[in-house]
Amino acid sequence: MERTLIADLSARLEAEVMIQGSVAVARQQGKMAFFDFRDRSGAVQGVVFGKPEVLEVAKELKQEYVVEVRGIVHKRPEKMVNADVQNGDIELEITGLTVINAAESMPFDLEGEFNLDTLLDNRPLTLRRTRERAIFKVQATITKAWREYLDSEGFTEFQAPKLVGGDAEGGSEVFKVDYFDGKDAFLSTSPQLYKQMMVGVFERAYTIGQMFRAERSATTRHLSEISMMDFEMGHITSYLDVIATVSGLVKHIVKRVEESCAKELTLLGVAKVLVPETIPVLTLREIQEIILKETGVDKSKEQDMEPEDERFICEYAAKNLGSDFVFVTQFPTAKRAFYTKANEENPEYSDSFDLLFRGLEMCSGAERISNHGDLVAKIASRGMDPEKFAFYLQAFKYGIPRHGGIGMGLERLTMKMCGLGNVKEASLFPRDMNRIDTLLQ
Amino acid sequence: MERTLIADLSARLEAEVMIQGSVAVARQQGKMAFFDFRDRSGAVQGVVFGKPEVLEVAKELKQEYVVEVRGIVHKRPEKMVNADVQNGDIELEITGLTVINAAESMPFDLEGEFNLDTLLDNRPLTLRRTRERAIFKVQATITKAWREYLDSEGFTEFQAPKLVGGDAEGGSEVFKVDYFDGKDAFLSTSPQLYKQMMVGVFERAYTIGQMFRAERSATTRHLSEISMMDFEMGHITSYLDVIATVSGLVKHIVKRVEESCAKELTLLGVAKVLVPETIPVLTLREIQEIILKETGVDKSKEQDMEPEDERFICEYAAKNLGSDFVFVTQFPTAKRAFYTKANEENPEYSDSFDLLFRGLEMCSGAERISNHGDLVAKIASRGMDPEKFAFYLQAFKYGIPRHGGIGMGLERLTMKMCGLGNVKEASLFPRDMNRIDTLLQ
Repeated sequence: MERTLIADLSARLEAEVMIQGSVAVARQQGKMAFFDFRDRSGAVQGVVFGKPEVLEVAKELKQEYVVEVRGIVHKRPEKMVNADVQNGDIELEITGLTVINAAESMPFDLEGEFNLDTLLDNRPLTLRRTRERAIFKVQATITKAWREYLDSEGFTEFQAPKLVGGDAEGGSEVFKVDYFDGKDAFLSTSPQLYKQMMVGVFERAYTIGQMFRAERSATTRHLSEISMMDFEMGHITSYLDVIATVSGLVKHIVKRVEESCAKELTLLGVAKVLVPETIPVLTLREIQEIILKETGVDKSKEQDMEPEDERFICEYAAKNLGSDFVFVTQFPTAKRAFYTKANEENPEYSDSFDLLFRGLEMCSGAERISNHGDLVAKIASRGMDPEKFAFYLQAFKYGIPRHGGIGMGLERLTMKMCGLGNVKEASLFPRDMNRIDTLLQ
Repeated sequence: MERTLIADLSARLEAEVMIQGSVAVARQQGKMAFFDFRDRSGAVQGVVFGKPEVLEVAKELKQEYVVEVRGIVHKRPEKMVNADVQNGDIELEITGLTVINAAESMPFDLEGEFNLDTLLDNRPLTLRRTRERAIFKVQATITKAWREYLDSEGFTEFQAPKLVGGDAEGGSEVFKVDYFDGKDAFLSTSPQLYKQMMVGVFERAYTIGQMFRAERSATTRHLSEISMMDFEMGHITSYLDVIATVSGLVKHIVKRVEESCAKELTLLGVAKVLVPETIPVLTLREIQEIILKETGVDKSKEQDMEPEDERFICEYAAKNLGSDFVFVTQFPTAKRAFYTKANEENPEYSDSFDLLFRGLEMCSGAERISNHGDLVAKIASRGMDPEKFAFYLQAFKYGIPRHGGIGMGLERLTMKMCGLGNVKEASLFPRDMNRIDTLLQ
């Protein structure tokens, strides 16, 4: 008999069907056995009643057994209907049961509360939890929505290299790789230089991929391997064009996730994202004034925002501006990466911005320097050697459109979309100072 | 004035427009100047005639200058129409020209012939060639088509980690990374173990990302960093289910590329892909018999195929079976990775396969061992320590569906779709033993 997906069962009332899936819940009581089965399309309840030869198999089933189930789809009596769950109005009367693969007894209550280390030590198993499946369905929807939107805006996807020849950009802590014949290579911390080169090729380009940060940070916001979503766009007239594209992009992502993952968001217990028609854009100075006015704390000498400031202004914006997103502009040029364009009227400020979401920095963006001479001078003024950037600088020597773009952390966005407390929960197999799959010795 | 994309010009006949783009061709002659401009949407010809103040700017323009152009769109006289190129029926009468960014004189004829080292040494520039833009548009279309097809088949995308804790799988040469505090990590050679774990989570899962091979191979088929497209699917009844999915997938990719990149394929001069309704499936033995019959060479003692055999059988299949694709099955179990399922009737043969395309191995696939005890025994029988696989083995200890999948090299597929002679031409920024962007010292 051909397999029916669990999501299609309700269309096959009173038919005999065959499903394949895993046992999510097993409850055996005397001459009866109740199960929840799940496959990639969803979950359904099944019951064995009175069939001794089927009951014999049913009795050995434990959680996570993989089974083939034959049965007849029945409508549940009115008073047994559960409108809140998938297939809550049907039940499978089980007529045949075959074990495809057995499972050992669960070492814990799979759907219970976990501390972070237990959750991560047992990742191949704990990823099967309803909660974890919800988180990573949201994550898959984010990447899909990212591409949908940028494809529709004329961007071309490209593959950015992860092995790089030097820590040209400086600043970030990088991992060193033993390359061939005693030569060193490094793991890329950002596709920045490559996506700028791609502006000369496709004008608008994006890439999604893993990047590596050797920072000795053990916070709830840091990972040593992250999934970055980057885009870069040419022929802008200012960084505000980049902000406009980011606004359209995050609105599309939110819409897509809320449409495609409604069930998952409910399960995760997160509120609807506040995203107004126009996302607020505040300068660093304006935020410092709001903080002074609201809390009496004077931050006007600060050149950047502390995590507590990010949380504060996001709470403020949610309450007063109806937005979970806030753009922050006019960061001091000296505090931004060398390729960031300084504002023409006030060169001490950069044409850059951050996007905050629910208290956390989601992305950094800017217009970049596009003039070859300006870029070479800027590299030298930062004490770096322009010769080491010769490959990258070709893109500028031979003409590049005015351009800008952003990098956005997929795990951070997933974390905040799902209301998680730690970014490690938003990474399938998180790597940090102490862990690669299991704790490092 | 608002920017018009070059692709939209033909809808604006006799209108005054503004375009932004790069100078692809510049030809100045006395009181006239002719240009080809390109932006992300395409190319158009423009002409300056008689306007001294515009001509003054026009005279300084060189190839790759970035410009803003104002002009009036005219239909070309009948005899000037070139039906073979985009906008071959229109011309822009240039009324204003502004330089956005200058370019130095080209160091070579950008659209001319290149040797491989020159092509790669100057990648930020040579990627702007018509030919290179065509290759990487095809590549972007392949990844898009891969996702489209697998999304429609109920697969979920996931992010596979690139940093791994050990060279558990053995065999492949791996790059070592200096991790924190003197600990070692390694660069992943394949998402194999992770995608198998994901079968327990989403039943069907795929991932696209970079993988790393420290092989000392300097052939036209090898890179040290490759983009791998991997999928794994649960609840199969044999490896033939995987072959069926791969068939549907490559057919969709070919269709998509031929639809979306018709212009690019013509430019690259590649023939239409031969892909019959049913892609031929031949056993290794059958192929050896064909080789014997056709060439008199006896390969019947060989346990695998040599590159020359792959080329031979592909030529044979194109000519006699109307297919540029060939599946090869029944490889000896001993020659395949430890997680490969042996055939139940003939355990010396594995339930695995390769897919060849135009003379080159494109992907390897198989049903995997899904029984925990069998897998542990197999690991031990290969002289490896099951303890080192404890994390991965959790997925099997706690029940996993029968499953199988494939890994396919994006650069190899791009190479063969585009008719290239070297896989390095199918990588934007290829890495090999001797090169990371530029040649290593």
